[in-house]
Amino acid sequence: MNYETIDHIRFNDGADGVIILDQTCLPGTERYVCLTSLEEMAEAIRSLQVRGAPAIGIFAAFSLAALAKKDPADSASGILSRLRDAGDALASTRPTAVNLSRAVRRMLDVAGTCDGMTADALRDRLYREAMTILQEDIAMCRAIAGHGLTLLREGDGILTHCNAGPIATSKYGTALGPILLAAEQGMHLRVYADETRPLLQGARLTSWELQRAGVDVTLICDNMAASVMKQGWVQACFVGCDRIAANGDTANKIGTSGVAILARHYGIPFYVLGPSSSVDLSLANGAEIPIELRPEEEIRSRWYAEDMAPASVPCYNPAFDVTDHDLITGIITENGICTPPYGQNLPDFVKK
Amino acid sequence: MNYETIDHIRFNDGADGVIILDQTCLPGTERYVCLTSLEEMAEAIRSLQVRGAPAIGIFAAFSLAALAKKDPADSASGILSRLRDAGDALASTRPTAVNLSRAVRRMLDVAGTCDGMTADALRDRLYREAMTILQEDIAMCRAIAGHGLTLLREGDGILTHCNAGPIATSKYGTALGPILLAAEQGMHLRVYADETRPLLQGARLTSWELQRAGVDVTLICDNMAASVMKQGWVQACFVGCDRIAANGDTANKIGTSGVAILARHYGIPFYVLGPSSSVDLSLANGAEIPIELRPEEEIRSRWYAEDMAPASVPCYNPAFDVTDHDLITGIITENGICTPPYGQNLPDFVKK
Repeated sequence: MNYETIDHIRFNDGADGVIILDQTCLPGTERYVCLTSLEEMAEAIRSLQVRGAPAIGIFAAFSLAALAKKDPADSASGILSRLRDAGDALASTRPTAVNLSRAVRRMLDVAGTCDGMTADALRDRLYREAMTILQEDIAMCRAIAGHGLTLLREGDGILTHCNAGPIATSKYGTALGPILLAAEQGMHLRVYADETRPLLQGARLTSWELQRAGVDVTLICDNMAASVMKQGWVQACFVGCDRIAANGDTANKIGTSGVAILARHYGIPFYVLGPSSSVDLSLANGAEIPIELRPEEEIRSRWYAEDMAPASVPCYNPAFDVTDHDLITGIITENGICTPPYGQNLPDFVKK
Repeated sequence: MNYETIDHIRFNDGADGVIILDQTCLPGTERYVCLTSLEEMAEAIRSLQVRGAPAIGIFAAFSLAALAKKDPADSASGILSRLRDAGDALASTRPTAVNLSRAVRRMLDVAGTCDGMTADALRDRLYREAMTILQEDIAMCRAIAGHGLTLLREGDGILTHCNAGPIATSKYGTALGPILLAAEQGMHLRVYADETRPLLQGARLTSWELQRAGVDVTLICDNMAASVMKQGWVQACFVGCDRIAANGDTANKIGTSGVAILARHYGIPFYVLGPSSSVDLSLANGAEIPIELRPEEEIRSRWYAEDMAPASVPCYNPAFDVTDHDLITGIITENGICTPPYGQNLPDFVKK
């Protein structure tokens, strides 16, 4: 087996597990860690060492392949029950993004077809399925970038929230895909990156990725988005997504819905970019999307040198919010740009 | 002279300068510093050791009184030119809030009437004027609290941004005044405090002040305001102000205008609370209010233990924004609750 993956999620023949770029250390340190046990893999997702809806799906797929590789059983059936438990454990680490549970389900379904085969046959099948998930994600991101690029003009200002760039996916990213593709083609854009409290994915990851790609990026605090829009500096908002309900309501990083409301107020188009696999037609609307609540400490003290809030003050820390479908100008998947009414049009973009 | 001021801005007969509670050390440390030179006083305003539109006006008034007290001249005229230079230096430290330049102007006008008197007569007159400014602020805050309280009902949820509490003023505060008065009277409110990046006045100061007063406060990141509003937890927004133009456009801490837009979207009333001295009828609208830009480092690294953004990424860091008058439900001054149309109604609330 010739194991070749991507730079920030590596799984190769010699490795004892899955190697990832630890995103909690960015931008100061580019640290890679090798995760060898189920517990380490689950904790890597929970602690956001690996993050981004598509990326955690890819990571979970390779994690299952790696666990099967390490499993001492001789037969596929000997591995299967442990693999199912591992899949359940990984899928339950973060509830909001649908990509994670979908990737796990897909890997377990494939594993189920290997019952009666040798352990090595199962291992090979799992590795190939994970690689397929990865390759599909690369193609998906590239297609999204192309569709999004058609909306951009030389000199445009784009506001983005959180991080939906290469390290949140496989390559290119979703929301950052059109921007990076534009840069490759010599187009000049100005990007405003919301820092995205509490975990600062915009400050730490988006501005780092865009700077490395030579994109003109300006970092702002989340509460400065209205000010930047009011001055006419923003021609479009591009954000990623964690789950899209059948009516177009979209769960994404906390703060996204506020950006959409501001964009509506200032007459700025607001686009959601993500794989069609983020669309969950089983949910009628956003109220049915589970929203992950994270530790209060992330607001009170994480990333800070000194106390930045009273140690005992209660905090409310939802990791995501839901943007109402009627605030969304278009949903850009690998299959094109879907416009309202989403309840009617989204299925066409999922089926293809 | 019996010098008695307030806890967080102290000027007494024995002191060699003005003693302030250093707000940059809160909530971890309650540190008091004595500022003895003009340079230290100006830097205290610039660095936000003392902050809040009314509080920096009061502080500047006592600073001028303290500088006159230390001045070696025997006659008022000997002190006057140095005092005018000091006033200009203090007034230029922060441009947005009108209270600072107003307090300085008032002190210099009073000083001007003392020409020909003894130095001690001038010193006494300056001290008494500063005390009058302080006493007026206390009465103003108390009146605002009373007017604001009429808008509150048992169990209401209030969202506030930045800090407009006791330490931003003299006592009670402006935006927090009604909340603290309600608590004194046994009313139960739920307050959502925006942390207010980049300098975290909401996390460090508002949640600290409200917790000490026994108020039910929940700290949120700025980008969570939309989520909290959507869930029906907010019945009104209360914010302070740094300057109000003749048409009601209001400059306040960066992020305020975004809160107002979200409140409008969710049908939540949005109130501005501040002294009538924050109204600047000489400015037709908010576009004429100067907006202070602060160092990029405040976004990239201040308060943080480790690099939280690439060291070289450009940042845009306006300290204030302007909320359009048509987003403001009412402007609450010591003279009552002014409602639209502000261009017509505001002068009545300023004259009294």
